[in-house]
Amino acid sequence: MTLSEAAEATGGRVLGDGSLIFKRISPVHDAGPGDLAMLANRRYAADLPGCAGRALLVSETLSRIEGGPVDRLVVEDAHAALIDLLPLLHPEPPGECGVHPTAVIHAAATVPERADVGPHAVICAGAMLGDGARVGAHCVVGEGVAIGTETVLHPNVTVYAGSVLGDRVVVHAGARVGVDGFGYVTSGGRHRKVPQVGGCVVEDDVEIGANCTIDRGSIGRTVIGAGSKLDNLVHVGHNVTIGPGSMLVAQVGVAGSVRTGAGVAMGGQAGVSDHLRIGAGARIAAQAGVIGDVEPGQVVSGYPARDHGTYLRAMASLMRLPELVRRLGRLERRLGLEDAG
Amino acid sequence: MTLSEAAEATGGRVLGDGSLIFKRISPVHDAGPGDLAMLANRRYAADLPGCAGRALLVSETLSRIEGGPVDRLVVEDAHAALIDLLPLLHPEPPGECGVHPTAVIHAAATVPERADVGPHAVICAGAMLGDGARVGAHCVVGEGVAIGTETVLHPNVTVYAGSVLGDRVVVHAGARVGVDGFGYVTSGGRHRKVPQVGGCVVEDDVEIGANCTIDRGSIGRTVIGAGSKLDNLVHVGHNVTIGPGSMLVAQVGVAGSVRTGAGVAMGGQAGVSDHLRIGAGARIAAQAGVIGDVEPGQVVSGYPARDHGTYLRAMASLMRLPELVRRLGRLERRLGLEDAG
Amino acid sequence: MTLSEAAEATGGRVLGDGSLIFKRISPVHDAGPGDLAMLANRRYAADLPGCAGRALLVSETLSRIEGGPVDRLVVEDAHAALIDLLPLLHPEPPGECGVHPTAVIHAAATVPERADVGPHAVICAGAMLGDGARVGAHCVVGEGVAIGTETVLHPNVTVYAGSVLGDRVVVHAGARVGVDGFGYVTSGGRHRKVPQVGGCVVEDDVEIGANCTIDRGSIGRTVIGAGSKLDNLVHVGHNVTIGPGSMLVAQVGVAGSVRTGAGVAMGGQAGVSDHLRIGAGARIAAQAGVIGDVEPGQVVSGYPARDHGTYLRAMASLMRLPELVRRLGRLERRLGLEDAG
Repeated sequence: MTLSEAAEATGGRVLGDGSLIFKRISPVHDAGPGDLAMLANRRYAADLPGCAGRALLVSETLSRIEGGPVDRLVVEDAHAALIDLLPLLHPEPPGECGVHPTAVIHAAATVPERADVGPHAVICAGAMLGDGARVGAHCVVGEGVAIGTETVLHPNVTVYAGSVLGDRVVVHAGARVGVDGFGYVTSGGRHRKVPQVGGCVVEDDVEIGANCTIDRGSIGRTVIGAGSKLDNLVHVGHNVTIGPGSMLVAQVGVAGSVRTGAGVAMGGQAGVSDHLRIGAGARIAAQAGVIGDVEPGQVVSGYPARDHGTYLRAMASLMRLPELVRRLGRLERRLGLEDAG
Repeated sequence: MTLSEAAEATGGRVLGDGSLIFKRISPVHDAGPGDLAMLANRRYAADLPGCAGRALLVSETLSRIEGGPVDRLVVEDAHAALIDLLPLLHPEPPGECGVHPTAVIHAAATVPERADVGPHAVICAGAMLGDGARVGAHCVVGEGVAIGTETVLHPNVTVYAGSVLGDRVVVHAGARVGVDGFGYVTSGGRHRKVPQVGGCVVEDDVEIGANCTIDRGSIGRTVIGAGSKLDNLVHVGHNVTIGPGSMLVAQVGVAGSVRTGAGVAMGGQAGVSDHLRIGAGARIAAQAGVIGDVEPGQVVSGYPARDHGTYLRAMASLMRLPELVRRLGRLERRLGLEDAG
Repeated sequence: MTLSEAAEATGGRVLGDGSLIFKRISPVHDAGPGDLAMLANRRYAADLPGCAGRALLVSETLSRIEGGPVDRLVVEDAHAALIDLLPLLHPEPPGECGVHPTAVIHAAATVPERADVGPHAVICAGAMLGDGARVGAHCVVGEGVAIGTETVLHPNVTVYAGSVLGDRVVVHAGARVGVDGFGYVTSGGRHRKVPQVGGCVVEDDVEIGANCTIDRGSIGRTVIGAGSKLDNLVHVGHNVTIGPGSMLVAQVGVAGSVRTGAGVAMGGQAGVSDHLRIGAGARIAAQAGVIGDVEPGQVVSGYPARDHGTYLRAMASLMRLPELVRRLGRLERRLGLEDAG
């Protein structure tokens, strides 16, 4: 691809020689002589002088940054440009169409002609795949599961009976969808299981990371709202509703019956206690432990989670505490008071 | 099922018309006109006025709550009533009995007649399944593993060689039991692995959540005590003993050689450092980081974990710290002391 | 094995009767009369008087400890001695050589004669296994993946297309290697995925725990440095470089584009935010939340992570805060100042 072609594909502009050809896009520090080096973040500007790339892909705000290749493709947002360019450079391989002979498909399952079922995959009775759906090797699609059009299950995924996945959903390897929730009634030290018979609904355009676990409802439903994205190893408990367009970074845990508004963001390893309400657009910092409702748009961090700025200031002042103790003692001595500490 | 029949099944009583028929049980906010709406928590009372359910299932303490259906099934504990009612409303499907023809069963494995082995499951040499055991699709039951009666492995579970699972154990999809522990001897920056040859024992009536990881012992044994329940994505290190009847919520991590008494509870994402002793009945709050022994019955939170009440009060007072600094400066000025800060 | 033979194998020395025979090594509290009991840690000395073992394996520093068996094998480091002794006591079973007939191996994959491929494993087009490699049941080795010599994949592992694993790598059950990273461009509440087309390189002698998730690079590469060890349920984001010889304990999360030097150690459940630099030999305590760069050799803990000693002292002084508030009020009253609180 030439720099000019890339400019056309992205709506960007060329600084320098538009006829330069590149084969792939690489980070500045890793770029070889046939590469378009990408600088998306001023943090990596120090790598520019040593950059071996043929040309540089930069966002408008960094277009004139010094060092590195002088021939440049300037775009509004370098990351967004990747969305246009990478599919042209790395066209998706066609995949092996159809149903692999080792797949086990129940007679009462529905698999349309234009669907792929990988080696050893298991499709149980009553399950229905949408047009263009792809089920990877070793997936288990349980009884009565509905999978929408163009939805992709990577290998080794388990979808428990009765779960519903929308269109264009992507589920990465090892994720478990529709798992029994953690519901017990305890008496006399014995935990009796409450049957988990509710639903699990993953709406359109959701992406679920590798080895995530999404519980089914106990009697209600668990819902992952349309367009939400879950990173790897995220846990979502039973009866939870995640609002549409939310982002849950790796290892987040959301306990049972939590409800979030649209567009919430949870940083890595954050946790939310059961039955809470998280308002639309709220942002929960990495590792925050939320034990109370969060208002729409609020930003919280720490355990117990509080307003993010307040928390960081408090933790900073905490580091001055030994000094405060010394000052207090000096005052007490000056006044002839005995040091109570 | 009629309301009267449900009252009989649960030992509850009917307020209103006992002949009303319902087909399923739903949360108040989700109940349709043929449903028995369930209110287990006063928190959701606000949903009652809009409840479309035919009748209401409530605990005794909420029996007279205003709003919602006037025909009611009043029980001692609504959650406990579900344990009686749901199996009647949702009888478990019979399952496809026997050994699936695609399963790979070693000639030296023992599979009783009344056991199910799902598609593509692998049962290795010397493994023994108990009567009524069910091994899901794609499970791997390693060499010499013993699985008790009525124990259920959901799909994609791996049981490493030599592990022992008791009776009525349930293991959810993707859990790994008997994994090598994390044991190395480091010298000169090189980590040499200590062979992990110990056992892994999961006692009767344990439930293990999806994608959990339970390590085998290094030379001793890892033991999950009878009746304990592990939520999803829990990690248990090598040589750990979890006392009977314990509850480990999602994403808990227990490091090597920890020993707990009976009936401990660990909240989501809590962690326990290696070699510690956790007394019977101790409660470890969500996200707590335990780096010292915990007394029986103690409740701890925070990092490093301390008494729960003390910790919460300290964190609350921390938020007042900037104000204390101002007050201290005022005192110093009054006494003509230079502000040391 | 006799105590004398064990002394020879470990370079240790015998106290007492070298002709004593033992069959296995057990922890002190668990040792039977035919066992060599092992005491590696003074913490367990209290178990010695009740120890039923035939002889005692101890480190030099504990050689004269009172109680327990008087016949002893004294070594420099008892854990290191296990590395010598256990393979003699528990020789690895030969394994079922060759390719299982149920494995699905693409015609364009390379599987050398001296390699094992387990039941139902799937080896895709262009994948190459090294000499002596072992691929467990239900593994999926994606298109173009390269697996080095003597590398072992335990069951149910997924290696995404294009990933490269070195020699003598061990990957435990359910780990996912080369997963799509979590990269989106958000506008108008909609998250558009940035194609993840980079590489994932796991260098020689790395061990990856059960159910770990390692992302591929977005356009660059993710690299796990040679000899690094990852415990279970660890997450490594896209474009991360983990320096050689590092140790990541269970449930650690490393966000995208982090780079660490050699020999870093991260305690259980620790997290590192994206784009940070962690210097060689740095130690990150369990549950620490790192949101800034860490210097080589630095030890940090807490959230936000700070110098470990400073953090622990600050948390300790925090517990005295209510007392400080009382002392401050007393001073104010003494000076006739109104209590501002």
